[in-house]
Amino acid sequence: MSLQRPTLPKGTRDFGPEQMARRNFILSTIRDIFELYGYQPLETPSMENLSVLMGKYGEEGDQLLFKILNSGDFLKNVNKDDLKLGSKKTLSKVSEKGLRYDLTVPFARYVAMHQHEMELPFKRYQMQPVWRADRPQKGRYREFLQCDADVVGSDAPLNDAEIIAMLCEIFHRLGIGDISIKLNHRNILTSLAAITGNPELESAFCIALDKKDKIGKEKVKEELLQAGFESSGIQTVFPILEITGENDDRLKKLKSHFSNHNLDDSGIQNIESILSIVEKIGDLSIVDVDFSLARGLSYYTGAIFEVTLNDRSIGSLSGGGRYDNLTGVFGVSDVPGVGISLGVDRIYDVMINRDLFDQVTLEVTKVLVVTFDSQSFHHAFPLLGTFRKNGIACELYPEPTKLKKQLNYANKKNIPYVVLIGSEEMTSGNLTLKSMASGEQQQLSIEKIIELLRKK
Amino acid sequence: MSLQRPTLPKGTRDFGPEQMARRNFILSTIRDIFELYGYQPLETPSMENLSVLMGKYGEEGDQLLFKILNSGDFLKNVNKDDLKLGSKKTLSKVSEKGLRYDLTVPFARYVAMHQHEMELPFKRYQMQPVWRADRPQKGRYREFLQCDADVVGSDAPLNDAEIIAMLCEIFHRLGIGDISIKLNHRNILTSLAAITGNPELESAFCIALDKKDKIGKEKVKEELLQAGFESSGIQTVFPILEITGENDDRLKKLKSHFSNHNLDDSGIQNIESILSIVEKIGDLSIVDVDFSLARGLSYYTGAIFEVTLNDRSIGSLSGGGRYDNLTGVFGVSDVPGVGISLGVDRIYDVMINRDLFDQVTLEVTKVLVVTFDSQSFHHAFPLLGTFRKNGIACELYPEPTKLKKQLNYANKKNIPYVVLIGSEEMTSGNLTLKSMASGEQQQLSIEKIIELLRKK
Repeated sequence: MSLQRPTLPKGTRDFGPEQMARRNFILSTIRDIFELYGYQPLETPSMENLSVLMGKYGEEGDQLLFKILNSGDFLKNVNKDDLKLGSKKTLSKVSEKGLRYDLTVPFARYVAMHQHEMELPFKRYQMQPVWRADRPQKGRYREFLQCDADVVGSDAPLNDAEIIAMLCEIFHRLGIGDISIKLNHRNILTSLAAITGNPELESAFCIALDKKDKIGKEKVKEELLQAGFESSGIQTVFPILEITGENDDRLKKLKSHFSNHNLDDSGIQNIESILSIVEKIGDLSIVDVDFSLARGLSYYTGAIFEVTLNDRSIGSLSGGGRYDNLTGVFGVSDVPGVGISLGVDRIYDVMINRDLFDQVTLEVTKVLVVTFDSQSFHHAFPLLGTFRKNGIACELYPEPTKLKKQLNYANKKNIPYVVLIGSEEMTSGNLTLKSMASGEQQQLSIEKIIELLRKK
Repeated sequence: MSLQRPTLPKGTRDFGPEQMARRNFILSTIRDIFELYGYQPLETPSMENLSVLMGKYGEEGDQLLFKILNSGDFLKNVNKDDLKLGSKKTLSKVSEKGLRYDLTVPFARYVAMHQHEMELPFKRYQMQPVWRADRPQKGRYREFLQCDADVVGSDAPLNDAEIIAMLCEIFHRLGIGDISIKLNHRNILTSLAAITGNPELESAFCIALDKKDKIGKEKVKEELLQAGFESSGIQTVFPILEITGENDDRLKKLKSHFSNHNLDDSGIQNIESILSIVEKIGDLSIVDVDFSLARGLSYYTGAIFEVTLNDRSIGSLSGGGRYDNLTGVFGVSDVPGVGISLGVDRIYDVMINRDLFDQVTLEVTKVLVVTFDSQSFHHAFPLLGTFRKNGIACELYPEPTKLKKQLNYANKKNIPYVVLIGSEEMTSGNLTLKSMASGEQQQLSIEKIIELLRKK
């Protein structure tokens, strides 16, 4: 074997103990909330058949899927003509599997395969990595962790309201208070597109609106013009998109616009139902009804959510919505659902920037047994078993060595206590417990030490 | 989009809520023990550069690696001549990344990249899936979960002894009592190969021995003959491989054989040191010194471990050993280490077969709020917030529906309690708490119910 300089693939990262402690804090916070609302865990394989993945995320998504080379002689079906046809047309001859691109399509596939054994409504959460062959850049990785919660089998607004309540509570517990949960509805977007006079261009309307935060209002207007909207239509719709006031007022004003144009206001009614429940089970103050919210994905059919920082210093931290036919492509219709996806890596980056991890300690080991020579080293062995039997994580430096080296190990590893075994301790049977933070020392029996450490 | 019958790739599986609860029980048991011994979590990316993975697992391993197709125009460097050269030689032109095959090589790569910022000895655990393009069969999957613990930067026998103590405790806590932790040493195998008269065939000797459980003793002898061993050498070594008695006796007898042949007995001494520590910190009774234990991997340089069921109804549940130069291939020498790997999927299968999951409940939601009509449904909303604020996972069926349907939902989802809100409850302010198991009902205030449910 030749010597290799070890490297990592672009856009991927290792997570050492410190990062793991922080990531686990985020994950357990999210998991606790999902479970408080009755969501149950689910995991799907990292690989899916390409037939399941392709065509679900648009043409760009197809490009960004990581594909897995068929095992064995992968070129066996490729001939000269294929080389001329090019990679795109030859793909199916060399690859039939891809890595998960999100958690929504695999969940829809799961629901389609297990519909008969599921108790509906079915609430599941899923916390797994996804992979996208995007160009890596700050805050964008090729492997990143998503946390999704979805409920399928019910179109009742309580589900949508609970999704919002969960988002409130998750960000509250993570200490990220200055967020807005933006809320809109697919039917509202449909009616707004109708107000422009070009209802048939709804899709282009949503795609352009979705870019508002990135490119600004004026550029969106230009894009709408290019997409075929009339200037007059754009001028009519923008003031409506930007209606101000409290959420209630905005909805009331929008309702009167829709009434003037004789348009469907079922989306407004649905939002009102959802908000009236959020008022009782969550926190309405961070909900921001925003008629210009238009998430790119075309499968949403009802409410649409997005969580953004109020200072807009980073893209959305979470997004989701209601979809009433996601399993349709797998031959199973009439399974309405609603869900959200939280981006753990972005949340991590925000929390690092804001120093929000001070409550997360790296502490794994509670106590290091410190010895002075070979005799006290051997004396320490039974202590290890005693501590561990009592649920106290402990370590012994693996060989007799200098005191300084042992204390240094405790320090570097954030071990809060050491127990010293010197000749006096071996004679008396008592041990010296020392707090690494305060330096305070006490002579105590092992039973007292266990009692004390268990309380900490 | 055309209609698709959803399928899963061969050898992969979904894990629904019930399987997740069981798998999480195994994972948290293992994690608890690893942390009790001071191991800290680490995660590495699912993808590694093929330069890191190839050549580490033998030729078969190279074949079984899942390779990822380069993004974009993956055929751009492939020409007609490559088609003639075949898949193996063309691989590097279409793929430069692969999926993790185990957790050991990525850990060695991590150590090589982070050696200067690590505090040694460094104890890490890692619980992540690995992928192998093996032929799927009962108990063998293409994506499966490994739990590894390794300590690097120390060659002291305490580390090896703690690995054994952790294995004892993990299987004890999982309820799998009838196991043996087989123990051998690379130096012992080296000396045994020397006893045959063909020390240069040590590698063939180990490969043949490793198959003993699968193919039986006689077939191993045949294989050794074919590999070039003398019949007389085989006849000399087999009685030594099969020495009986207590562990101590076996080691003593082996020592006298080695002394007769004037062979290195440092491996025996190392095993004796390890066992003398295990005696004080763990359980010696399930350790089985077995001179015929020879794990396939060539990188082991010291103690070798393997955990098997005493009834041999399934392959090994865990394996590992000491390696003193695993990072050498990445240009970093002198980092000795020892570790084990636990196969979660096999442990799961054993526990299912033995009905060992009865202590694991699917319970996520503690209480379902049951309503009788639209009025009591709306009355229930504030209750949800109250329960959840108090850490009690609760649900409300998302719309008013028949009592039977709600109770059925509670039953199917293993929700242990329901709270009934009828007209009486709405008037009195008290609620009816019903245990789903016993059917017992009590009229209580919300405060009392919270107090009661928190205790359960």
